[in-house]
Amino acid sequence: MVNVGIVGGTGYTGVELLRLLANHAQVNLKVITSRSNAGIAVSELFPNLRGKVDLKFSEPSIQNYKQCDLVFFATPNAIAMHQVEELLEAGIRVIDLAADFRIKDLSVWEKWYGTSHVSPQSVEKAVYGLPEMNRESIKQARLVANPGCYVTAVTLGLLPLLRHGLIKPATIIADCKSGVSGAGRSASLGTAMCEVSESVKAYAVSGHRHYPEIKQNLRQLDAQADLVFIPHLMPMIRGIHATLYTDVIADVSQVQSVFEAYYADEPFVDVMPAGSHPETRSVKGANDCRIAVHYLPESKKLIVLSVIDNLVKGAAGQAIQNMNLMMSLDENAGLHGLGFIP
Amino acid sequence: MVNVGIVGGTGYTGVELLRLLANHAQVNLKVITSRSNAGIAVSELFPNLRGKVDLKFSEPSIQNYKQCDLVFFATPNAIAMHQVEELLEAGIRVIDLAADFRIKDLSVWEKWYGTSHVSPQSVEKAVYGLPEMNRESIKQARLVANPGCYVTAVTLGLLPLLRHGLIKPATIIADCKSGVSGAGRSASLGTAMCEVSESVKAYAVSGHRHYPEIKQNLRQLDAQADLVFIPHLMPMIRGIHATLYTDVIADVSQVQSVFEAYYADEPFVDVMPAGSHPETRSVKGANDCRIAVHYLPESKKLIVLSVIDNLVKGAAGQAIQNMNLMMSLDENAGLHGLGFIP
Amino acid sequence: MVNVGIVGGTGYTGVELLRLLANHAQVNLKVITSRSNAGIAVSELFPNLRGKVDLKFSEPSIQNYKQCDLVFFATPNAIAMHQVEELLEAGIRVIDLAADFRIKDLSVWEKWYGTSHVSPQSVEKAVYGLPEMNRESIKQARLVANPGCYVTAVTLGLLPLLRHGLIKPATIIADCKSGVSGAGRSASLGTAMCEVSESVKAYAVSGHRHYPEIKQNLRQLDAQADLVFIPHLMPMIRGIHATLYTDVIADVSQVQSVFEAYYADEPFVDVMPAGSHPETRSVKGANDCRIAVHYLPESKKLIVLSVIDNLVKGAAGQAIQNMNLMMSLDENAGLHGLGFIP
Amino acid sequence: MVNVGIVGGTGYTGVELLRLLANHAQVNLKVITSRSNAGIAVSELFPNLRGKVDLKFSEPSIQNYKQCDLVFFATPNAIAMHQVEELLEAGIRVIDLAADFRIKDLSVWEKWYGTSHVSPQSVEKAVYGLPEMNRESIKQARLVANPGCYVTAVTLGLLPLLRHGLIKPATIIADCKSGVSGAGRSASLGTAMCEVSESVKAYAVSGHRHYPEIKQNLRQLDAQADLVFIPHLMPMIRGIHATLYTDVIADVSQVQSVFEAYYADEPFVDVMPAGSHPETRSVKGANDCRIAVHYLPESKKLIVLSVIDNLVKGAAGQAIQNMNLMMSLDENAGLHGLGFIP
Repeated sequence: MVNVGIVGGTGYTGVELLRLLANHAQVNLKVITSRSNAGIAVSELFPNLRGKVDLKFSEPSIQNYKQCDLVFFATPNAIAMHQVEELLEAGIRVIDLAADFRIKDLSVWEKWYGTSHVSPQSVEKAVYGLPEMNRESIKQARLVANPGCYVTAVTLGLLPLLRHGLIKPATIIADCKSGVSGAGRSASLGTAMCEVSESVKAYAVSGHRHYPEIKQNLRQLDAQADLVFIPHLMPMIRGIHATLYTDVIADVSQVQSVFEAYYADEPFVDVMPAGSHPETRSVKGANDCRIAVHYLPESKKLIVLSVIDNLVKGAAGQAIQNMNLMMSLDENAGLHGLGFIP
Repeated sequence: MVNVGIVGGTGYTGVELLRLLANHAQVNLKVITSRSNAGIAVSELFPNLRGKVDLKFSEPSIQNYKQCDLVFFATPNAIAMHQVEELLEAGIRVIDLAADFRIKDLSVWEKWYGTSHVSPQSVEKAVYGLPEMNRESIKQARLVANPGCYVTAVTLGLLPLLRHGLIKPATIIADCKSGVSGAGRSASLGTAMCEVSESVKAYAVSGHRHYPEIKQNLRQLDAQADLVFIPHLMPMIRGIHATLYTDVIADVSQVQSVFEAYYADEPFVDVMPAGSHPETRSVKGANDCRIAVHYLPESKKLIVLSVIDNLVKGAAGQAIQNMNLMMSLDENAGLHGLGFIP
Repeated sequence: MVNVGIVGGTGYTGVELLRLLANHAQVNLKVITSRSNAGIAVSELFPNLRGKVDLKFSEPSIQNYKQCDLVFFATPNAIAMHQVEELLEAGIRVIDLAADFRIKDLSVWEKWYGTSHVSPQSVEKAVYGLPEMNRESIKQARLVANPGCYVTAVTLGLLPLLRHGLIKPATIIADCKSGVSGAGRSASLGTAMCEVSESVKAYAVSGHRHYPEIKQNLRQLDAQADLVFIPHLMPMIRGIHATLYTDVIADVSQVQSVFEAYYADEPFVDVMPAGSHPETRSVKGANDCRIAVHYLPESKKLIVLSVIDNLVKGAAGQAIQNMNLMMSLDENAGLHGLGFIP
Repeated sequence: MVNVGIVGGTGYTGVELLRLLANHAQVNLKVITSRSNAGIAVSELFPNLRGKVDLKFSEPSIQNYKQCDLVFFATPNAIAMHQVEELLEAGIRVIDLAADFRIKDLSVWEKWYGTSHVSPQSVEKAVYGLPEMNRESIKQARLVANPGCYVTAVTLGLLPLLRHGLIKPATIIADCKSGVSGAGRSASLGTAMCEVSESVKAYAVSGHRHYPEIKQNLRQLDAQADLVFIPHLMPMIRGIHATLYTDVIADVSQVQSVFEAYYADEPFVDVMPAGSHPETRSVKGANDCRIAVHYLPESKKLIVLSVIDNLVKGAAGQAIQNMNLMMSLDENAGLHGLGFIP
């Protein structure tokens, strides 16, 4: 059994971790911290957990974490970097669901996150937690930077193309659509039902923090890689749909089988039949990424459609997948849930 | 291992059975039939099942069912009654998720369902599958009539009150709100997104088929019981919220503990703290029924709020709970999923 | 032309007033105030007004209001009472869309609104702005208390029944369903998309501020009148659906024509054919109230279904209707918009 | 006064025409036809019209249409072409909201619409009804082909760029998002609430009928123009959001003022301030197109965001705008409604 803790479990990634870990047979949930809710039962905030999760929120403290083999940070950005070294020194493995350790180039990180990084050495240690890229390193890691939600959907859609050199690396367009839960759980006019339901809009067209993270991933595959990334807010709770526009530079008549072969052994990437249009609902609540590939011969564009649940494969589910790898558990453990239709 | 079949698995209760059974450790899914889709992979209709359910739809036939210990009918009303005896004779247990065997008084059934019943003897044999009322009979049953969705929410909200004689039995009002999935999966203008989203309406005010079924349940507890039942269509996919208005005839100062005691050992009924307002989302995807009780001293009304997921505790989940009881499995098996927040 | 001002126009009733007044041919919109947004163009907050409303928010001040014949208060509760006398003295008519002047019994008001009333004399002067009850008084009024949204839907549904003595006055149940915009425009977790979409819940079961207001209305028709009122939050933006359960005490065989006759001359109340189920969407954006009546002979219950748009007939539209009456304009002026289907 | 008829008014463009025309001061609505609903009051199908539109559906017949100065075809594709010549000969002006007369190249039309065109001469006569391109011709036209919804949003977003030669004409990408009402009013599983709510998907990636229509528009501005167009289905009722990716070939430092100047006199195109993100809700129910322009210097991409209500500027509103032009009415007549926030 793995003893697990969660730091800052009052957001949507926190409650999603709890929903999934509650049914993970090899996990003991030992501690969940929240300064503002210390003493309150977790299930009081999240009634879906009643009868399934008995924990109360406790004060964050190293003593609390010392019962744990592994701690998830489900905190806002720029929190984990202050505490991670103390935990690592205490022999505790750490998975950060925020962005503190995702970007290797600290100057880039500091530009996009608007603050100085206090723990460069932990950035150096951190393994980027996308199992489809870094499975073996994750298994050895003591600190994992869990990827961003958009980043996961986009990177998985492009990996086989860049690995096989099928597309121009520098002219990729990622038009991404996200449900509102990606904006987190907070009292904000911008995510109010009356503001975002029955409407669609682009946002952050001039630049979004997931852009440098996607670019870093793609650059590992091709030093020239670059993209235009525009996120859009959808009137729904969960789900990301990435529509990826790429320019073909090689024969792509076999692209369907290239994708199928590339992901044949991946437990959570599903390449759909040629001509498919994946729906985000098909992965709602599940750790799956569904991908479809379309070639448009007239424009020589290869279009990739990639969908995930932003809270599962885009956050909590992928974090548990990483934990499973780090703790030598079955990679699927606790992640058998299927998407909801309807 | 229990070998299981599904008749008519192309509706929402069918795909929900598949979603849940795919993770039931003691179940082998052997056959799923659909005349119109025979030969097609189940996961082609329902991509959420890709990689998890390998079955193809097959033609309905007794030979197909003979591989099964138990068969679920997820068919429209008035189908199962034609086939059930043949299955029972072949030693196969049956759970009907439609209404064929729910109403004991055939004249009532025929009035509300608009057709003659072809199998009165199976109605006689059938056990009404609400475990909270009939657990021991269900364990012995070979044919279970799985309750209606509204019926489940309303009956569970009223059981302790009628058992303890706390309310006038004949003046109950059940104002019920349901998500659209209760109307089933079919090409119908009445359930089109543009017709039902962003709107609320009552329907069937003059009479709904779940009325006689609720009344039959309540009459088992009090021969005078009767109610006014008005269903409303909500702009959401899943969930039922029953608001139950009752007239108090006894001291109800202990009503909270009456409910808590009554449901103390029930794995799927959660009595919330006094003053709570259960949300349907807290049971989305889960087999739970959440109940809260409010007493209004000025009007001497006792208000019960009862929520379920119409496709889980209101259909497929309860059917699996019944299967577990019939097959001597752990009652919770395959039903550990938690509600989705958000 | 009527010169009009709006105090506190940054909420949903404020922007709805602007949307409607922008097309009111007899209205000059002179001033709209907001302390926190002074200097900012109204259309910057509400882009739907771009090119149609040129005003900027200005500081609230009596000088500003002096350009106006009539001022709407679209402020939170307990604001207008501090300023109303100064405006009235300056000869400006006032319509308060909040609750400051709705309740005649100050002790009741103070109990439900949790503060002392600073202007009892204005409460005395105020006319309750439900044209279907008080049209002639409204025409003479200098201060109108615009009714609450739930109150409007419920009162209009019950008026003919109480006037004609058809029902028991003290055993009414109002099960009401409201869209989220009723909760106003503010940064609040409780109205976040991820918290309220795809879910239904009751709230304020132990007591809601609209209860004493409804009761005051009904008591004008019958001194014994009382009700149980339970509001529910619906996963939609606009709309209120009131389901009214009443006990018949007289022959109601003519109830349909009673309703039709009662509302025959009302421009904004539409009695639907017997057996109808009004949808809230049929009044989305319109100042209409649609009503249907159903008699259930077995239980002797008369069920009334009443729907409005909470922001129009339940707030801004009704306020404009009141303005039209006060300023001797055509009662329909500016209120010709039809509901949206789809 | 203009006497107006509607052929086939039972779809969403039909009811939207009725909603708008009911408040058009210069229009007499004389006839609305529907073979299957002949004799039924329009307001029985669409209760939002009760008390505002008194018409009944009648049988389609030339006699019926002869009372009209102008007839709208709100029929499915390939209907109007069979009847248009008879109407034109009778001196009746015609606006077709379907696609029969949009594409000048008949072989292209026949390929995409899968049938032979029966009235090539009417295609030749028809004026393409996008006022921002063809205002003067529309004023003279007797037959107008009302543009497709996607086509309107995309064309308006690109017009100034192509007119001024600011972008590469052949590498445009239009990633478009549409509400479900674009799919029409019909009993179809594909538009059921439970199938499309809370989900996003691309569709028709291999080719959509609006592609040749957009291309025809763009080719009028630049003979090399071409695009990749991918539509997506959004979980909302109304609204289209076009995200347009273009490659800059000239100095675009003045692009904001280019757009503002280009559309300065257009009553229904609103160029938002630089850096804006238009929301579809800001045009919900209104005939407006809102546009924002963003330049990304690193990639030399110019991104245009363009939103309309697919049923208004994308269909019925634009048709009325065309009627106003054809009948020498104020171009804004009947189109003053503002978007809904919230």
